[in-house]
Amino acid sequence: MRGAVIHAPGDVRFETLEDPRILTPTDAIIRTTVTCVCGSDLWPYRGLEPIGAPHPMGHEYVGVVEEVGSEVTNVKPGQFVVGSFATSDNTCANCRNGYQSSCLHREFMSTCQAEYVRIPNAHGTLVATDGHPADEFLPGLLAVSDVMGTGWWAAEAAEVKPGSTAVVVGDGAVGLCGVIAAKEFGAERIIAMSRHEPRQKLALEFGATDIVTERGEEGVARINELTGGIGADSVLECVGTAQAMQQALRSARPGGNVGFVGVPHEVAVDGQELFFSHVGLRGGPAPVRRYLPDLIDRVLTGRIDPGKVFDLTLPLDQVAEGYQAMDERRAVKTLLKP
Amino acid sequence: MRGAVIHAPGDVRFETLEDPRILTPTDAIIRTTVTCVCGSDLWPYRGLEPIGAPHPMGHEYVGVVEEVGSEVTNVKPGQFVVGSFATSDNTCANCRNGYQSSCLHREFMSTCQAEYVRIPNAHGTLVATDGHPADEFLPGLLAVSDVMGTGWWAAEAAEVKPGSTAVVVGDGAVGLCGVIAAKEFGAERIIAMSRHEPRQKLALEFGATDIVTERGEEGVARINELTGGIGADSVLECVGTAQAMQQALRSARPGGNVGFVGVPHEVAVDGQELFFSHVGLRGGPAPVRRYLPDLIDRVLTGRIDPGKVFDLTLPLDQVAEGYQAMDERRAVKTLLKP
Repeated sequence: MRGAVIHAPGDVRFETLEDPRILTPTDAIIRTTVTCVCGSDLWPYRGLEPIGAPHPMGHEYVGVVEEVGSEVTNVKPGQFVVGSFATSDNTCANCRNGYQSSCLHREFMSTCQAEYVRIPNAHGTLVATDGHPADEFLPGLLAVSDVMGTGWWAAEAAEVKPGSTAVVVGDGAVGLCGVIAAKEFGAERIIAMSRHEPRQKLALEFGATDIVTERGEEGVARINELTGGIGADSVLECVGTAQAMQQALRSARPGGNVGFVGVPHEVAVDGQELFFSHVGLRGGPAPVRRYLPDLIDRVLTGRIDPGKVFDLTLPLDQVAEGYQAMDERRAVKTLLKP
Repeated sequence: MRGAVIHAPGDVRFETLEDPRILTPTDAIIRTTVTCVCGSDLWPYRGLEPIGAPHPMGHEYVGVVEEVGSEVTNVKPGQFVVGSFATSDNTCANCRNGYQSSCLHREFMSTCQAEYVRIPNAHGTLVATDGHPADEFLPGLLAVSDVMGTGWWAAEAAEVKPGSTAVVVGDGAVGLCGVIAAKEFGAERIIAMSRHEPRQKLALEFGATDIVTERGEEGVARINELTGGIGADSVLECVGTAQAMQQALRSARPGGNVGFVGVPHEVAVDGQELFFSHVGLRGGPAPVRRYLPDLIDRVLTGRIDPGKVFDLTLPLDQVAEGYQAMDERRAVKTLLKP
């Protein structure tokens, strides 16, 4: 089969790879229907994370089951399935507590920009849809496997409540999905921080009520102004930089919450500042598996359409251009069709 | 009047001071019935916080109202009152949100180891009891003004739930009150981390079910062992050092919570470690004012007896010995009688 391999910063190639095969009884092999490039893939692409030896890329996927291991009974060959970027057995103590992305047997997906993918822990990770969904739903279901689930988690971790004010820091695909989530959670006011016109437009379409273009301390001052000098009830930090984290923490009111879902890069939170802020902080990889049945349903009933975050669609063999377009911010998110 | 003044590390003196007087219409003057030395007073006493010019000390108090400003209508001269170490108007947005210790008009108390004290924001801070409580309740009510309220807040911030497992890091007065709170919140298992026999005994009396004497990574390993390899649901961090914070974060399970109530000294939380831990973190000065009616009631009905944390009682004029005894860990907490 063929798939994407990163060799060095800026160097992603479409290559012939060994076909994946069942390695353990809980594995499944799927034929990828659609896959995509994630904002987090840009960290190594931009040389901000070590790459080491050339390796496959991609952790978002929907597809059709080709083969299952002997212990996989939840899905069967021929079914269309959605999974999570973090695999889980869905039975350990952490899974039972609702934190499937901290499953004791967790394996992160990392080979999904390819024609076929091996899914470890398939028995606890994959959820089949009723029949094969129409093409129009594929982008939305693909988003559920990571960015929509992650935006949902940001809203949950930030404890967005009906009638509340939520701020979304970051206008990438996760931030935009965070706007969808905040709206679904019932936030009355959703302030999206964005300085890019097409993303502002999408944020408004997804339910944002205000756009703030300022950043850093100016952004904090603007949020303060918009919230009567008190700060927001909930802040969804969807970036992962020190600046974004600081902006998020300073935008929340005492007793408010920050949910942080971008993998932090060189972020340290000052204990004394956090103390006197009275802000609650929770983050981590999204427990997408917990949300799958609900989010699949919201997509298939047309209640939400997170697939709109894909503003570039390419054949999988043009994956390199998919990375480059996102790196140069020509695209929010690239969908890839094998 | 006379009161305690700190001049330098290790140098607390009992001196003649100017009588406090009403400065604003929302002030009250109280005659101190009992006051005490706080663990946090030891930071400057030990030279770990700058002292600057000699200044009065103390932020814990109960007393009898002597005089009130024209806008103080909630209490009147002659009444016995309990307050908080953080004063609040109890009407601003932060107060209404339940975070009175982030009141927009907050002033921290700092002159309470004295015969008389001026209470700013008395209108929103002081709560009168029905009549004058019997002497046996004075230590408990005094504890409510800070350490018991702070232990309560630690349990709240750590989201202790009925049937859960709570770990208390720190065996000072706040940690011991945290044990009381965890029990009142319904924790089934309460693991107190302590290596001092008298404090272990008090922790057990207050409701601890397990004692862990190990610290640091060994302490974390022990908690892990006691919680089936998963970690605790809630951890109450009642110290404020980097070591205690790290120990707390690593003792909580994914999806669990750390409430941190010791003012952090040189604590930085690594963003990536917090991210992958899935642990929620909230701290700050305790919103004692919110708890006062409930905690006063629990003390006066004998349901809780946080006054037991006072294991040394001295006349106020021996305040210097009160500090020294706590510094040398001869006493958990010193009660002072004017």
